[in-house]
Amino acid sequence: MSSSSTILSLSEEFDKRKEEIINEFFTFLRFSSISSEAEHQNQMMACAHWLQNYLKELDFDVELWKSTGHPVIFASHMLAGPEKPTLLIYNHYDVQPVDPLPLWETPPFEPTIKKDSVYARGAQDNKGQCFYVLQALKAVLKRDGKLPINVKLCIEGEEEMGSGALAELLPRKSKELKADYLAIVDLGLTKPNTPAITLGVRGIISLDLVIQDAFVDLHSGSHGGIVYNPIHALVELLAKLHDPSGKVAVPGFYDAAESLSEKERAALSLYFDADEYQKEFGAHPLGGEKEYSPLERAWARPTIEINGITGGYTGQGFKTVIPATASAKISCRLVPNQEPEKIAHLVSKFLVENTPKGLRVNVDVHSGGGIAVRTSPNSKIVQAFTRAYSEVFQKPCEYILAGGSIPIVAELAKASQSEVVLLGMGLPTDRIHAPNEHFGLDRFKQGYLMFSRTLEILGVDNSI
Amino acid sequence: MSSSSTILSLSEEFDKRKEEIINEFFTFLRFSSISSEAEHQNQMMACAHWLQNYLKELDFDVELWKSTGHPVIFASHMLAGPEKPTLLIYNHYDVQPVDPLPLWETPPFEPTIKKDSVYARGAQDNKGQCFYVLQALKAVLKRDGKLPINVKLCIEGEEEMGSGALAELLPRKSKELKADYLAIVDLGLTKPNTPAITLGVRGIISLDLVIQDAFVDLHSGSHGGIVYNPIHALVELLAKLHDPSGKVAVPGFYDAAESLSEKERAALSLYFDADEYQKEFGAHPLGGEKEYSPLERAWARPTIEINGITGGYTGQGFKTVIPATASAKISCRLVPNQEPEKIAHLVSKFLVENTPKGLRVNVDVHSGGGIAVRTSPNSKIVQAFTRAYSEVFQKPCEYILAGGSIPIVAELAKASQSEVVLLGMGLPTDRIHAPNEHFGLDRFKQGYLMFSRTLEILGVDNSI
Repeated sequence: MSSSSTILSLSEEFDKRKEEIINEFFTFLRFSSISSEAEHQNQMMACAHWLQNYLKELDFDVELWKSTGHPVIFASHMLAGPEKPTLLIYNHYDVQPVDPLPLWETPPFEPTIKKDSVYARGAQDNKGQCFYVLQALKAVLKRDGKLPINVKLCIEGEEEMGSGALAELLPRKSKELKADYLAIVDLGLTKPNTPAITLGVRGIISLDLVIQDAFVDLHSGSHGGIVYNPIHALVELLAKLHDPSGKVAVPGFYDAAESLSEKERAALSLYFDADEYQKEFGAHPLGGEKEYSPLERAWARPTIEINGITGGYTGQGFKTVIPATASAKISCRLVPNQEPEKIAHLVSKFLVENTPKGLRVNVDVHSGGGIAVRTSPNSKIVQAFTRAYSEVFQKPCEYILAGGSIPIVAELAKASQSEVVLLGMGLPTDRIHAPNEHFGLDRFKQGYLMFSRTLEILGVDNSI
Repeated sequence: MSSSSTILSLSEEFDKRKEEIINEFFTFLRFSSISSEAEHQNQMMACAHWLQNYLKELDFDVELWKSTGHPVIFASHMLAGPEKPTLLIYNHYDVQPVDPLPLWETPPFEPTIKKDSVYARGAQDNKGQCFYVLQALKAVLKRDGKLPINVKLCIEGEEEMGSGALAELLPRKSKELKADYLAIVDLGLTKPNTPAITLGVRGIISLDLVIQDAFVDLHSGSHGGIVYNPIHALVELLAKLHDPSGKVAVPGFYDAAESLSEKERAALSLYFDADEYQKEFGAHPLGGEKEYSPLERAWARPTIEINGITGGYTGQGFKTVIPATASAKISCRLVPNQEPEKIAHLVSKFLVENTPKGLRVNVDVHSGGGIAVRTSPNSKIVQAFTRAYSEVFQKPCEYILAGGSIPIVAELAKASQSEVVLLGMGLPTDRIHAPNEHFGLDRFKQGYLMFSRTLEILGVDNSI
């Protein structure tokens, strides 16, 4: 059969099963599997068990790897024979918190189809991407009674909080995870109907900063002018993180940062349409280092972002208070050669040294940081996916980078001794991590087709 | 009877009724009368009705003045005759919000006695101060069957949110409020057992500031480095409010501000013990304009304080978000001759003009601001309270200023055509507006004695 007729029959199979697939997908989405919020603990476990059963029914050998955190689902289907390659596929079943909840047009855990897109927390990141992979496996298994290659699945439950549980498990699971290739299916495209493979992600560190002055909240009338308001100290400190050109002002921050080579820059699709961006998000591309283009800033330059700030009274009305403490959540995105520990140290030092004297400051660097990852467009696994993408989309495949971070990628690649590729069907407009996250059903199907074809391509010797 | 034997018999009467007084006081404190939070609307009304009944039982004529906001309780006892002066007494029955709730050692609306102090929201500000006034009136009425002067009470329900309802009522209630003297019983002493009368309060304006960039929250990986994070814009903007010497950097802010004259400065008790302050509050006196002493900064200099700041993710764990908006609540304390509208305009202009281009900014000045008030130590009403305080405490009375604001003071004095005095039994250590607010029962009783004596002193012609 030609690749186009294979795709046609896979497509017909999908359309036939569409209602069933959507129903199952919705069940997956209804679990409020927010890993970072303790009150969703039961839903995390229920979601893991549901996935476990789903994979068992596909004749996978399934294990629930337990650790001090949320369980990792490990599943394998190793019947293609030792001469066939083994592909380890990575997804995650945990999702981001949903606040601000009032901005959701439909409830985040009650999936809703609008304009052929599924709206729900996790619709794309990463339950949507995980579920089209499972549909690809299911379709090929159903059609052929077997898979053309050996497949292992690693579906973790702490991606949105730093992958601590999986990181903890890796040292003793090398054997189970061993694979030739590792596909991180948590990325995406830059625009609809244009295939893209991601050649790298940024690393990350994050931390909590707390500044305290008084033991207690004080009345801003009686004490205003006497004490150093910790909110003042905090904003003055945080304002120092960037210089007027948008550069990070922490000494040594850029020292190890690798720039893009001319060759890397040439391979990448760096075109950025500021008007389109403004139309979609309402924001102008005015952040970061002014000397770099927007996509280079997001993909290949390190950043410091304040992800949260709070202090004093923030409810309705007004309260004349000088709070005891003010705090911020801060993250840095890292590029190749920047060591997370080193950057965390430099930033912490900067914050402590620049806090006004007489106030107490506490910096708490979170665990779960990770280094940046880059991969070559010439690798065998990148080439296999490139071909599958091109076939499904009938278009050449772009190479891009991702500004986001999947801290576990480098560690998982190391533990499994595999060649990594980063890919997916996300779009920048999917509102992941934000209210009204959604995922187009067209892309769900394209992802399913692309993944099914990749399995076939990898199953044929010398087909790449 | 000599003043000392009068005080002795009032003291004995208090001790006899102490259990009953505390029970009634606790009932008053149990109403969660937070005026600024809509969910406490019913408790506000219940509290007003309770006070209304309490005053009716003291044979006061009581009216509940309704407006678009929370009701004002107006009560009068005008049987002393037209030759006797009329004293208008101001208190408020509303209280501040209670957050952060976890820091309360006992529930804010379940009053608890610890070490002879009552712990509850409002224990001092202002239910405690209101209730010793009512006990003074009750004791004198019980003893003499009448009051030595004519008394009017104005107990409002929106002091903690800017006194909007009372301000709305004033233009049509001049006749009812008409008095010779106006006692604002919402202030205090600087240290225990040292009587003090407050010769002025600062004015206030407050506002909400919101900076918006994108329409929606964005992923800080995909968008970090592209957009101008509104938290960054906010901290950079707010950091500009003060120069390195602690002065407010808004052009024109100090232009109209009146400084203390040498004579005013000499009359005031400006001594400040930094070690004591640090011990009590945990904070060093390092805020505000470095060229002024701590109490002069809090009493007689204008300030800008950030009372609240929020943006992005502030819950447990972490979220890699660039929020759509970041916001702050800001207030300015004003000194004589500074016009609230003018200062609000200058600050708003500064905030708008200094917001980075390309981001949207919104400044919403709250209603309910007020001018600063100063009164003379030589006025008849100040002299009456000075004598009563000195008798009860057996010590000379200090004159102080208050850094706080009671925006309605100037308007109420104008509407009632009366001479104003500001006083009370609060202490800076009472933690008003903060968790674990408390009020010493010793001061409750001293306030009751002082107020009873003032009624008597004002009832005797030429006694001052």
